[in-house]
Amino acid sequence: MHRPIITLTTDFGLKDPYVAEMKAVIMSICPDAVVVDVTHQVEKFNVTMGAYVLASAAPYFPGGTVHVAVVDPGVGTSRRGIIVHTKDACFVGPDNGVLGLATGNALEPKCIFRISNRKFILSKVSNTFHGRDVYVPAAAYLANGKLPSEFGPRMRGMVTPGFAKVVREKDMVVGEVIHVDDFGNVITNLSRRHLRHVQFGQTIDVKLKDTWLRFKFCRTYGEVELMKPLALIGGHDFLEISVNQGNAAEVFGVRSGNRVALCLS
Amino acid sequence: MHRPIITLTTDFGLKDPYVAEMKAVIMSICPDAVVVDVTHQVEKFNVTMGAYVLASAAPYFPGGTVHVAVVDPGVGTSRRGIIVHTKDACFVGPDNGVLGLATGNALEPKCIFRISNRKFILSKVSNTFHGRDVYVPAAAYLANGKLPSEFGPRMRGMVTPGFAKVVREKDMVVGEVIHVDDFGNVITNLSRRHLRHVQFGQTIDVKLKDTWLRFKFCRTYGEVELMKPLALIGGHDFLEISVNQGNAAEVFGVRSGNRVALCLS
Amino acid sequence: MHRPIITLTTDFGLKDPYVAEMKAVIMSICPDAVVVDVTHQVEKFNVTMGAYVLASAAPYFPGGTVHVAVVDPGVGTSRRGIIVHTKDACFVGPDNGVLGLATGNALEPKCIFRISNRKFILSKVSNTFHGRDVYVPAAAYLANGKLPSEFGPRMRGMVTPGFAKVVREKDMVVGEVIHVDDFGNVITNLSRRHLRHVQFGQTIDVKLKDTWLRFKFCRTYGEVELMKPLALIGGHDFLEISVNQGNAAEVFGVRSGNRVALCLS
Repeated sequence: MHRPIITLTTDFGLKDPYVAEMKAVIMSICPDAVVVDVTHQVEKFNVTMGAYVLASAAPYFPGGTVHVAVVDPGVGTSRRGIIVHTKDACFVGPDNGVLGLATGNALEPKCIFRISNRKFILSKVSNTFHGRDVYVPAAAYLANGKLPSEFGPRMRGMVTPGFAKVVREKDMVVGEVIHVDDFGNVITNLSRRHLRHVQFGQTIDVKLKDTWLRFKFCRTYGEVELMKPLALIGGHDFLEISVNQGNAAEVFGVRSGNRVALCLS
Repeated sequence: MHRPIITLTTDFGLKDPYVAEMKAVIMSICPDAVVVDVTHQVEKFNVTMGAYVLASAAPYFPGGTVHVAVVDPGVGTSRRGIIVHTKDACFVGPDNGVLGLATGNALEPKCIFRISNRKFILSKVSNTFHGRDVYVPAAAYLANGKLPSEFGPRMRGMVTPGFAKVVREKDMVVGEVIHVDDFGNVITNLSRRHLRHVQFGQTIDVKLKDTWLRFKFCRTYGEVELMKPLALIGGHDFLEISVNQGNAAEVFGVRSGNRVALCLS
Repeated sequence: MHRPIITLTTDFGLKDPYVAEMKAVIMSICPDAVVVDVTHQVEKFNVTMGAYVLASAAPYFPGGTVHVAVVDPGVGTSRRGIIVHTKDACFVGPDNGVLGLATGNALEPKCIFRISNRKFILSKVSNTFHGRDVYVPAAAYLANGKLPSEFGPRMRGMVTPGFAKVVREKDMVVGEVIHVDDFGNVITNLSRRHLRHVQFGQTIDVKLKDTWLRFKFCRTYGEVELMKPLALIGGHDFLEISVNQGNAAEVFGVRSGNRVALCLS
């Protein structure tokens, strides 16, 4: 029997004691857990970015992993804490959309439970740090073998994130920039299947914000010269706009949330 | 028997090999140890910030944890390396105050030992990196079951940090900003007991630097509108000044070490 | 039998899902592995810095550790993935020099193998993320006990990094700045043996970029006043230029790659 895995995705940063406090609580409840940081550098309060990063990383983890996501601008208000149980994993966090993309990927029907059983919550709950006092204890008890149904009543639905909608408009598909990574790669929510008509080496027309641009559609960065732009399918099957060894987001002045269109003709 | 836990709190940052070298030394001496980073992003040479972050995180760890703190502007000079043994944990680091807040929280009398037994120090000690050569080996041997008294002579006292003093002045209590967290929350050393006379929802008068300001005393951020300021008791029972989804330290131009006064009348 | 150790050195940063995806792949193949981050904050595409950081940290790890380094501007092009087997450890990464300094330290002859056996590569390999799809699976299978020779044909040589060359010119030795650490310490590739003629407390003449400067040669930072410069042998036996509790790289306007000369007379 392998040690249970718990992952953490937050906007807490790394300079404060917050992440260590969460890990300490996990180790107090489930000493055998292996804790893996997905990231703690989600932009403050950026639920969309948290949802994207978690959804990218989660599919690579072994079955049974418990994922905790805490990007929680509404902490202490009436928004609920939930556990989402899919075929592959359990997801724990606030019901504000941060779990929506990762759990939406699950092919099987998913079960959603509210976290309300105070037996599984730290005895003294702060109003500002539910990551430590509510979500991480829930994750650690799940890792110990508690069933999601023991934490509270089953819910009929959950908040879904507002992004990740791709629409067809005439001869275009229109989506948005869902993430700009640390290299400056511009990651869109257009996927490989929107590019079925294109061969590698051909060009594609992409509208970033208000400007139509033409990119070579490549397998990898090295197919264009240094500092030249290109389009490719990134490690997550999304269309990415990149600059070979450069920073595409800076070159094109693009950031998360910007509109992207792809010409289909 | 669970694996021993060793935590690390330093100002080394994460881009250099230093933290990995410390972990490598731990794993060479105590392969079963679980190493948890509290933070490596203490401001360079800011002993006060290191002391605060360690003191915040330490109480959440299971009993028997060994905490190492290395914020050490005096490395290689005559300042001593110490082990502080409390009822709950062992603390290892330079005798410059960085351990003072965390070990001061211990209710039981504490025992302080100098690290001088060369049997527990790397055979070749550099003059600039005692974190790797002195403190972390001591922590790993402690995790292996060595007794603090085996490391060197018992000491009568230790350096205490200069902060964390709250004084009464007429109808005020006066303290200081001990930390500005990554969200911009302004954390003071005034605690919940200084606010016994205040009900949630009432206002309080707080002097930040030279200006008296009035804040709504809230349970949580969401009780004021977006980007509005508030006062609350944070996750560590300290008075915090915050801005709902904003950065209070920027709004009020406040940083660590600034004077804070609270009106009691 | 202790758990196998795998270290990671990359330029991926910590805000994206990439590092977690690599760890997830490791845990899927070798659940007992202990993963240690050396750093993920190598400057983007800076193979030299990656090579230096890995070479600094690797000697402190227990024998049998598997080190993965991914600073890979040529991902998806024809550059090869390799495993270098030394007396002490295995090193996995692209054949672009990033492994050259760490493996060059090995006293024993080393064996180099190409990674080409698709049995040990993720079934769906992206063109842009060989860290996750090629190098980390190789490392995890090595940690499981596979032999380096099972991964592909033996190679006669590998790319060596262009730095780490120190030349004698008249009465000087000339090298370069190989790293500026997070404290601003300027780390050169001149080593303790180039300073055999100097006693501690004496001065040395060092040319940084185009300017000859005179530094006190010290054992440790505290031997000069606050904010005063000094020269010392750092934790890795390299000559470093520092400022006591200050930032030498800023004071002298120096960065990685700059030329450094030491006067021998």
